[in-house]
Amino acid sequence: MMKVKVYITLRESVLDPQGSAVRTSLHALTYNEVQDVRIGKYMELTLSKTEEDVDARIKEMCEKLLANTVIEDYRYEIEEVVSS
Amino acid sequence: MMKVKVYITLRESVLDPQGSAVRTSLHALTYNEVQDVRIGKYMELTLSKTEEDVDARIKEMCEKLLANTVIEDYRYEIEEVVSS
Repeated sequence: MMKVKVYITLRESVLDPQGSAVRTSLHALTYNEVQDVRIGKYMELTLSKTEEDVDARIKEMCEKLLANTVIEDYRYEIEEVVSS
Repeated sequence: MMKVKVYITLRESVLDPQGSAVRTSLHALTYNEVQDVRIGKYMELTLSKTEEDVDARIKEMCEKLLANTVIEDYRYEIEEVVSS
């Protein structure tokens, strides 16, 4: 079995209104040291063993469905899970 | 300057309808090796230097605003950013 951690973030050039709203709220709670907040998605996928090229398949999944590649970047980490 | 990466995930016991929907879509795209999908939030905070205890402040931010601790878990990583 494999666990894949996928991180999807807005591109630097894209405005992040949600992040700005969170920053404003943090300032209202007196956390003024917070200069910037960028919010993205974090996904954990559990995959069964497969003969396919896992890296290529994950890349395809990100490109086709998980990330909107027009405005988002993605990166992922693949971990082998030793089932007990 | 510091960069903090915050990962917010639903607790194991909490149902993840969004994750189930993504899994169904991945199966429809023939990625049948995907057994489970859990979706959470990934935040990148940029903090200015502060005399305060950064770890304690981040924990407070998570507990008060960033995570809904009734149904979500959070973890974070603090990185020193060397400004060029």
